[in-house]
Amino acid sequence: MKKVVALGEVLLRLSTKDFLKFAQAGEFNADFGGSEFNVVASAANFGMKAGFVTRLPDNDIGKCALMEMNRFNVDTDNVVFGGDRMGIYFLEKGASIRGSKIIYDRKNSGFASLEKGMIDWEKTFEGATWFHWSGITPGVSQGAADVCLEGLKAAREMGLTISTDFNYRANLWNYGKSPSEIMEEMVGLCDVVLAGDYAASQYFGIEVSGKDEGERQMSLCDQLRKRFPALKSIAITTRGNISALHNTWSAVIDVEGMRYASSTYDITHIVDRIGAGDSFMGALIYGLNHFDPQKAIEFAVAASTLKHTIYGDVNLVTHQEVEALMGGDTSGRVNR
Amino acid sequence: MKKVVALGEVLLRLSTKDFLKFAQAGEFNADFGGSEFNVVASAANFGMKAGFVTRLPDNDIGKCALMEMNRFNVDTDNVVFGGDRMGIYFLEKGASIRGSKIIYDRKNSGFASLEKGMIDWEKTFEGATWFHWSGITPGVSQGAADVCLEGLKAAREMGLTISTDFNYRANLWNYGKSPSEIMEEMVGLCDVVLAGDYAASQYFGIEVSGKDEGERQMSLCDQLRKRFPALKSIAITTRGNISALHNTWSAVIDVEGMRYASSTYDITHIVDRIGAGDSFMGALIYGLNHFDPQKAIEFAVAASTLKHTIYGDVNLVTHQEVEALMGGDTSGRVNR
Amino acid sequence: MKKVVALGEVLLRLSTKDFLKFAQAGEFNADFGGSEFNVVASAANFGMKAGFVTRLPDNDIGKCALMEMNRFNVDTDNVVFGGDRMGIYFLEKGASIRGSKIIYDRKNSGFASLEKGMIDWEKTFEGATWFHWSGITPGVSQGAADVCLEGLKAAREMGLTISTDFNYRANLWNYGKSPSEIMEEMVGLCDVVLAGDYAASQYFGIEVSGKDEGERQMSLCDQLRKRFPALKSIAITTRGNISALHNTWSAVIDVEGMRYASSTYDITHIVDRIGAGDSFMGALIYGLNHFDPQKAIEFAVAASTLKHTIYGDVNLVTHQEVEALMGGDTSGRVNR
Amino acid sequence: MKKVVALGEVLLRLSTKDFLKFAQAGEFNADFGGSEFNVVASAANFGMKAGFVTRLPDNDIGKCALMEMNRFNVDTDNVVFGGDRMGIYFLEKGASIRGSKIIYDRKNSGFASLEKGMIDWEKTFEGATWFHWSGITPGVSQGAADVCLEGLKAAREMGLTISTDFNYRANLWNYGKSPSEIMEEMVGLCDVVLAGDYAASQYFGIEVSGKDEGERQMSLCDQLRKRFPALKSIAITTRGNISALHNTWSAVIDVEGMRYASSTYDITHIVDRIGAGDSFMGALIYGLNHFDPQKAIEFAVAASTLKHTIYGDVNLVTHQEVEALMGGDTSGRVNR
Amino acid sequence: MKKVVALGEVLLRLSTKDFLKFAQAGEFNADFGGSEFNVVASAANFGMKAGFVTRLPDNDIGKCALMEMNRFNVDTDNVVFGGDRMGIYFLEKGASIRGSKIIYDRKNSGFASLEKGMIDWEKTFEGATWFHWSGITPGVSQGAADVCLEGLKAAREMGLTISTDFNYRANLWNYGKSPSEIMEEMVGLCDVVLAGDYAASQYFGIEVSGKDEGERQMSLCDQLRKRFPALKSIAITTRGNISALHNTWSAVIDVEGMRYASSTYDITHIVDRIGAGDSFMGALIYGLNHFDPQKAIEFAVAASTLKHTIYGDVNLVTHQEVEALMGGDTSGRVNR
Amino acid sequence: MKKVVALGEVLLRLSTKDFLKFAQAGEFNADFGGSEFNVVASAANFGMKAGFVTRLPDNDIGKCALMEMNRFNVDTDNVVFGGDRMGIYFLEKGASIRGSKIIYDRKNSGFASLEKGMIDWEKTFEGATWFHWSGITPGVSQGAADVCLEGLKAAREMGLTISTDFNYRANLWNYGKSPSEIMEEMVGLCDVVLAGDYAASQYFGIEVSGKDEGERQMSLCDQLRKRFPALKSIAITTRGNISALHNTWSAVIDVEGMRYASSTYDITHIVDRIGAGDSFMGALIYGLNHFDPQKAIEFAVAASTLKHTIYGDVNLVTHQEVEALMGGDTSGRVNR
Repeated sequence: MKKVVALGEVLLRLSTKDFLKFAQAGEFNADFGGSEFNVVASAANFGMKAGFVTRLPDNDIGKCALMEMNRFNVDTDNVVFGGDRMGIYFLEKGASIRGSKIIYDRKNSGFASLEKGMIDWEKTFEGATWFHWSGITPGVSQGAADVCLEGLKAAREMGLTISTDFNYRANLWNYGKSPSEIMEEMVGLCDVVLAGDYAASQYFGIEVSGKDEGERQMSLCDQLRKRFPALKSIAITTRGNISALHNTWSAVIDVEGMRYASSTYDITHIVDRIGAGDSFMGALIYGLNHFDPQKAIEFAVAASTLKHTIYGDVNLVTHQEVEALMGGDTSGRVNR
Repeated sequence: MKKVVALGEVLLRLSTKDFLKFAQAGEFNADFGGSEFNVVASAANFGMKAGFVTRLPDNDIGKCALMEMNRFNVDTDNVVFGGDRMGIYFLEKGASIRGSKIIYDRKNSGFASLEKGMIDWEKTFEGATWFHWSGITPGVSQGAADVCLEGLKAAREMGLTISTDFNYRANLWNYGKSPSEIMEEMVGLCDVVLAGDYAASQYFGIEVSGKDEGERQMSLCDQLRKRFPALKSIAITTRGNISALHNTWSAVIDVEGMRYASSTYDITHIVDRIGAGDSFMGALIYGLNHFDPQKAIEFAVAASTLKHTIYGDVNLVTHQEVEALMGGDTSGRVNR
Repeated sequence: MKKVVALGEVLLRLSTKDFLKFAQAGEFNADFGGSEFNVVASAANFGMKAGFVTRLPDNDIGKCALMEMNRFNVDTDNVVFGGDRMGIYFLEKGASIRGSKIIYDRKNSGFASLEKGMIDWEKTFEGATWFHWSGITPGVSQGAADVCLEGLKAAREMGLTISTDFNYRANLWNYGKSPSEIMEEMVGLCDVVLAGDYAASQYFGIEVSGKDEGERQMSLCDQLRKRFPALKSIAITTRGNISALHNTWSAVIDVEGMRYASSTYDITHIVDRIGAGDSFMGALIYGLNHFDPQKAIEFAVAASTLKHTIYGDVNLVTHQEVEALMGGDTSGRVNR
Repeated sequence: MKKVVALGEVLLRLSTKDFLKFAQAGEFNADFGGSEFNVVASAANFGMKAGFVTRLPDNDIGKCALMEMNRFNVDTDNVVFGGDRMGIYFLEKGASIRGSKIIYDRKNSGFASLEKGMIDWEKTFEGATWFHWSGITPGVSQGAADVCLEGLKAAREMGLTISTDFNYRANLWNYGKSPSEIMEEMVGLCDVVLAGDYAASQYFGIEVSGKDEGERQMSLCDQLRKRFPALKSIAITTRGNISALHNTWSAVIDVEGMRYASSTYDITHIVDRIGAGDSFMGALIYGLNHFDPQKAIEFAVAASTLKHTIYGDVNLVTHQEVEALMGGDTSGRVNR
Repeated sequence: MKKVVALGEVLLRLSTKDFLKFAQAGEFNADFGGSEFNVVASAANFGMKAGFVTRLPDNDIGKCALMEMNRFNVDTDNVVFGGDRMGIYFLEKGASIRGSKIIYDRKNSGFASLEKGMIDWEKTFEGATWFHWSGITPGVSQGAADVCLEGLKAAREMGLTISTDFNYRANLWNYGKSPSEIMEEMVGLCDVVLAGDYAASQYFGIEVSGKDEGERQMSLCDQLRKRFPALKSIAITTRGNISALHNTWSAVIDVEGMRYASSTYDITHIVDRIGAGDSFMGALIYGLNHFDPQKAIEFAVAASTLKHTIYGDVNLVTHQEVEALMGGDTSGRVNR
Repeated sequence: MKKVVALGEVLLRLSTKDFLKFAQAGEFNADFGGSEFNVVASAANFGMKAGFVTRLPDNDIGKCALMEMNRFNVDTDNVVFGGDRMGIYFLEKGASIRGSKIIYDRKNSGFASLEKGMIDWEKTFEGATWFHWSGITPGVSQGAADVCLEGLKAAREMGLTISTDFNYRANLWNYGKSPSEIMEEMVGLCDVVLAGDYAASQYFGIEVSGKDEGERQMSLCDQLRKRFPALKSIAITTRGNISALHNTWSAVIDVEGMRYASSTYDITHIVDRIGAGDSFMGALIYGLNHFDPQKAIEFAVAASTLKHTIYGDVNLVTHQEVEALMGGDTSGRVNR
């Protein structure tokens, strides 16, 4: 059976309720999430075996995180404990023309003080067939970058397929290295990438051109393929930002030079778009392991479209709900 | 003064908050509702006298149901107590392309174990001029079907007008009888029906045809009239499912062969569409008792359009709010 | 440094949650607001010095109001205490075709029993450069009207710029005076007015004509200028009521005969539109003190557009958020 | 069958949650209650027929009050509508050495503007055997006092038993009459009274003496009997205030000169003591109609002891729960 | 490493908030729990390996239960899905002299329709050293009793230690068998029992005598030992019910005839006592596996004393918190 | 008029609701507090002028803190902005034998990175007559210690009275200095101290002896006086920890060698004891400025006794409520 394992940081998410501004918040919802965890939890939710490895502070908040992660049927046996604190992000939910706002408070977290050797990669990858990481991890600290590379090499050695999500975060990468110094080698070890123009430019100085979205996507794929010949599949999502609660959403995947485009969905009344990209990645990993590329990309887009209606970082829609949407039922009828 | 009385089951409705999935729900809103109760509560709300008869378990949950029902100015003096439990339905509220989901847990309820003779129909119909039931009741159990027929005959004998709502529920009708064995006689005793294609096909094998909505409605009316010559009025509602929170809504009524069509409303930002059909029926009964058919159908559609903005099973909009909408004000202005 | 001071009543706002009808409300959100306070709190929020004067009941509810007002960095040192009670308004939040409903319960409040001499205007206006009032205050009671006129005269004498918002409320003006008896003199002392057709007709019998919105605005400006030659600037907002949660919003300002029109915004998924006009006025006062007229009107419309996404009476968006919207970003993207 | 009817004001109760001070309250629980309504709702809860008459404002808040009152199986058919507003009381819940605080905002309510002739007493008393009022009503306004006396005379004429609760409120009685001018005649028409030292002194100048609680109770009874020879039964409750959440509670009743004393209960962890006296009166009326005096006083004290554990103004404990406590089970065991 | 596995039913617990009566509940907290699950979750919480086997309905509510169970680090791999519904219990939280009330609605659950062969006992007991069950399971249905016996025999065969909690529930045992017909054989297979007078009398007709608590405990032990010679350890807890929120709590254990008594704790301000007995059992199993009998009984009583301060069915106190209490610190100081 | 100014850190307090463990918390209450802020807010609440100086991060969370601080009528004009983050503390509320638990996450806060020269002490002390600080600040970082000493010297120079609270926190003092290196000079500059045995031992190696509480208090005073001859007043509070929600509370103050002891209060049903010591200090500063020592100590103890019933860090009880308690009314009666 296929098993996907990811490395990443899990943060405590403190979000305001009912579209309140931070300045009005007398209470916060408290959840846990992180890009790479969201990916494996999504894959697990569709029935794939999944595992996750991270470092949590050895206090009650860290233990809460672990308990919450356990809910999603993700194997957390290789999580390690240590460091000073749990990373936090504050989320103020926007509406209409006011976008959501995120304030990160993640410095000096248990994960940021990861060091080589702390994670037992051999044990972590036992039974695993796929390894996922994202550009967030090497941006956190030198130690996190080191550990990620360590994992990548172990995965390569043990024959796992490797995927990454570029996930460029401007407020990271402040430990003295430029992204390009770090990312080049790491992306070079990957089979599958979820890429984007802006991140490609930040990481590798790639400049995308083209007279429409399609040409721009091809330009990005071409340049990535040239630079990283090991890449088999390159996925790109497209979000149309009509307002904070109304987006369009679609994706393409280029598999060994063949381009597969998904349907485009119109998503009104968004409940929570944080983690939508991660739910795409999770469903794509599931899809690439179980379907042909066309169905995989449709599955990933439909799943992540539904994620926009799910509170929290993690997608909880069922396989059956995704299939119904792929079948064309966007009606939102009551299911009795 | 006109008085409408209905028979039906009332369920405990346990719904998730804020579009949460069941898997995220640490608490449920707890309300009570049921198709036929919703109908009479709506009629009562507009000022009509109303009564309701059902069977509730003789425990604190049953008594809660009664207390909540009392709020709506519906006469509950003839409600009987007994049986094992309160029927329940769990409601997960959807948004956008994700529809709401209902899980029924209503077997072995006090109502399902109703038996002939348990309800004093003569007393129940004292002062009543109208009796309403729906296709849910005979689908619940043989006993419920028997009692419903008992009520229909008593109503007929005492000269009440009788209305029904087809309300076909695929997850009922599992006590060994096919709907057609039961519904034929019961619908034959009715004056007014709220009908629909799918239910008509399930109940009576009626196949509707036509090149547009209007022709299909006529086809349904014609076949129902032929089969149930006692029927005076046939109402049909039309819902356009744009998304879970955006619908269109309209209706027609055929009164003794004359067709009256309503305006069509565009309902964005739906708050709660459960019970919208019931609120249509309640307002229609009120309308047919107080207005001409054209105004009755407009009143019923406007009232049930407003219901989509009301939390819970029961419509609480005032007569004045309905009239304002019928007057064309869909602006949603602040009323100071 | 510029400082704006306003006089007005602050009310306890009791609002239902989650679009519940009053008939369903087992709890109310409790906030404080009032047109003129909302104006100065908005101006203060953008960095202008601000003060507010009112009369609150000398009980715990009045003290709550003061504490809440203190949050907004508005100088409340000149607030006086006395009278029987806090004025209240109940707010039922509407959705879609159902508008919000307000029930006022403000009679006999501490503010309504204001009398001449209770407010120390000289101290209140210390350091102030601008005085704002609205048509609500003289509508409350003879005493409130007297005190407002007292303030206007003091402001005139001390050389402050004076602005007003017509703010006609049909349910006020019941103490025996017609609006025209009172408003003529008061508006005559003003430099800036936020005007509207209906209020102008109720206050002064002005009848506006014109074949489109633009002509009607000019007609109103012309007549106001003739009647009140001291007026330098006349602002008019235009709201398109598509539904309770979907509006369009724009404004014009006529400054000494020159007309400056703003962009028009489409506001879907409104969170709270109460106080939007006040947030326009507050941002306009800020704008007229810091920008040229064109930027001032754009700033005021952008700020008040954003207010529609803010819960409560008072706008809390930052200067930076307003500038981003003015720059054309209506995408509602997540700001990380 | 016995039926008790009461006259009184119902107020909107706005209470803080979780022991918050008013200054911390961003929301209020919203309930309805009033001394005399609490009494009849209690009696109805034990199975007695009950009715209530009051005047509510003709707006949505008044209609909410009616809907909530309907829950308790109390006949509200004779309630009248009119007047400006709903009376309100704000409740800040205390704990330990900090007592609860009530702020009344009840002036100019629909009830306060009651006038003679507004209530149809003959219809109100149809089928009734008992009339209850309290000292609050004549303290509200001259009109309320007039209507109460009107009701007392009608009750006397129609042969009803009459009970009253002294319920002296220092913040009422401000319409120009002293309590003694009003209460003398009214109490003279009563059969049963719930009396207290302080109220007796305020109303009638009665000075109670005695070297212990028992002697003081006898002194009060003696003086009341001399002054009001029609009185058959005089009840007196005794509360020991150990802390805000820990009280003792007992009562005596003197029936035609025979004294019956209840058990004394120790009530720790009080949930809500507002309305405890009213729940005593409601249970006493029920008891005097169904039991001998000794059992009646025990029932009334046990019922009102349990009320201290019930949120809100109205007692909701069952007959069975009261009997269990009377049987000596104060253990608070889990009942499965 | 030691591993405890249990069989039992998990119920959806719907509880009122803030001491509200059912009649006041507009929402319920929704949790999952069941005696035997609570036991293994407690043991897991202290660091023991744990597994649980049950049957859940194959719908979203059943899946919620599984997700919640996963939080507690209990192996749920052998849980089976099927049957009609999730069993439910409604909990009304009492205070002071009013006890909590439980209404069971558990008939026809997925667990109640268990049948022999549905559970793969060999796989379930893989790696297990201890099996726990309680008297609830054989009381649910013939099928549940059969499966429990099946498990007991498998456990015996595979050499596991077996514990049981008598847990007599009067509202079960209604499928046609008397407890004694069933329990005799099952208890005969056990090594450890948590016993009680009342259950022993209901199950086996054992009549306990003695002039004080100690003698009565010895009488119970003697009779149980005679009847079930395989029993090595018999534990008995003693609860003093001072009020709903104030109890005393202690226990004794007789291990092969040696009696070990625990300290007695005074527990004021109880937060939730549901599951306290289960937390005792879970901590006892942990204790008997890691400590000598005296420390085991002290550990079990201290852990379950702390459980009274934990919301929900499952104990979440840490090993360190239990040790601190055992060390004598009952001060409730703030731990910084 | 007297004005007290304090320096200190304000933290975001994230607390669980309803006695939930961290592991159960899906939401946190969000408040702001800090020992020294709590002190001045308390003093301000009783009517004294008050100011506060701190350093907050220049983001939305820092601005929230400022808005919340503004509520308390404390002058915050000299607060400075900068640094990375807001310090946080997580609070799990205990009950009965389970104490509350605090997890600090305050490293690298804006306050911790304070440096000399950042605060304009001359402006901060304008109009001030009293300066308060506590042992927390020098424990945070070298920079915070430096700034505090800077403030102490400025205060001394400008003739302010200086008070301190020892407030030893074991989890601070980790920047390389021992407390004694730092505290000696700082305490030497003070007039008033709130001292305790344990802190005195940690800071100065003072060992307290005595056969009872009184002797031990004298021993502590004697040693402090010898070491810090400038000290005029030494206050010591005594808490009896009966359980997490039941404490006793009293204090003594030694003013120039004269000892004044307060009453002792028994506080059951504690709502929130965090900040109780701070409320004592705030009331003591108020008392020493307005009353004789005996009344001052009684006032401070009564005020802080009441604080135990107030949610949050800051005492909100009124002067009148404190006087009522000092007058001996511990009954917790309802105040109408």
